[in-house]
Amino acid sequence: MGELVFVGLGLFDEKDITLKGLDAARAADSVFAEFYTSSLRGTTVATLELMIGKAIKSLTRKDIEQGSEILDAARRGSVALLIPGDPMSATTHVALRLRAIDAGIETRIVHGPSIVSAAAGVLGLQSYKFGRATTVPFTGDTFRPASPLDVIEENRKRGLHTLVLLDIKEDGEFLTAGKAIEYLLELAAERKSDAFTADTLVCAVGQVGSDRPRVAAGRAK
Amino acid sequence: MGELVFVGLGLFDEKDITLKGLDAARAADSVFAEFYTSSLRGTTVATLELMIGKAIKSLTRKDIEQGSEILDAARRGSVALLIPGDPMSATTHVALRLRAIDAGIETRIVHGPSIVSAAAGVLGLQSYKFGRATTVPFTGDTFRPASPLDVIEENRKRGLHTLVLLDIKEDGEFLTAGKAIEYLLELAAERKSDAFTADTLVCAVGQVGSDRPRVAAGRAK
Repeated sequence: MGELVFVGLGLFDEKDITLKGLDAARAADSVFAEFYTSSLRGTTVATLELMIGKAIKSLTRKDIEQGSEILDAARRGSVALLIPGDPMSATTHVALRLRAIDAGIETRIVHGPSIVSAAAGVLGLQSYKFGRATTVPFTGDTFRPASPLDVIEENRKRGLHTLVLLDIKEDGEFLTAGKAIEYLLELAAERKSDAFTADTLVCAVGQVGSDRPRVAAGRAK
Repeated sequence: MGELVFVGLGLFDEKDITLKGLDAARAADSVFAEFYTSSLRGTTVATLELMIGKAIKSLTRKDIEQGSEILDAARRGSVALLIPGDPMSATTHVALRLRAIDAGIETRIVHGPSIVSAAAGVLGLQSYKFGRATTVPFTGDTFRPASPLDVIEENRKRGLHTLVLLDIKEDGEFLTAGKAIEYLLELAAERKSDAFTADTLVCAVGQVGSDRPRVAAGRAK
């Protein structure tokens, strides 16, 4: 019976993996990757393949949910699943791990740098002053969840910062900070909430993990 | 004018550094390290020195607060400061970075795996279901802060988990989960709070980042 190792790729490019993660990927019989929870903007699958020295099969969210290909491989030998950031942040990773354990497959996590701690560091803010995090999704006419504003309101009442993650589509399109701010302003206006107004101080970070992360701070409007 | 690079060492041993972090440490003219915010239980300074290929000077909290040695070195050349976990989690790191910027020294962060995201992953819990984090310090007759219980109360009211970090002394002694639980039970009893009772479900994790993290879950008493 094999092993399934969840390997964190970290934040930006192929060099944000740990030495332990690289060892695990190189030692694996098969290497899979997913980029639907985040993408590594500073690298490509080809560069990762060159570094690891073997082919990488990219999986969609559906592949991971379905899981049979990766579990079959892990029954036969050792499998590394490469995941941007720190693994197990997505429910699909946790579900896959539970299925592997049920199937008698050993599992292991190799942690990687995550935006959850890195965002505070880049901004010089203290991580214990952050309340719960939230994600602003791509919205539509019928899909306009209020949960991101709920979380911001709850945190602001307690004087806490909120880490607001931005949604990403499977094709790699990601929600911009500008669109997310616009959406939050709309939600707050509809609700007549003062938790997110034109005056609210917003910090936006991008390309974290690169040599020159992009940081902007200012009022929401 | 030189550069000061804050390099995250990650969680457990010398292989939890990223490739980018190892490159930065190897390229630096001088390498410093601190182990007062956390220690790497799976390795030694000598092993890190061997891996990086140069001498590492360990600094105390006082050295970092005072800062002159590291800033002098960073005025003359490139300096790497090795920090367990993800850098900038401590106010002393942020203060040092601000002083470096004031002195015209370039700064850069190389992120590393942090317990802030890893704890949730090891436990299979979702990071967005965590409220703010807290630390249980070593207490004494006159130092018995209630803040850890305040944070747990606040989070539990909202149905959120709390990441409770355990204090560490400069000599490497760390507060055990058992001692922290005992302290929280005392605090809650004094306050007649039901936020932390004998019945409260507690998960304790240790050696995260190793191949075999230690995980325990059960009622507080």
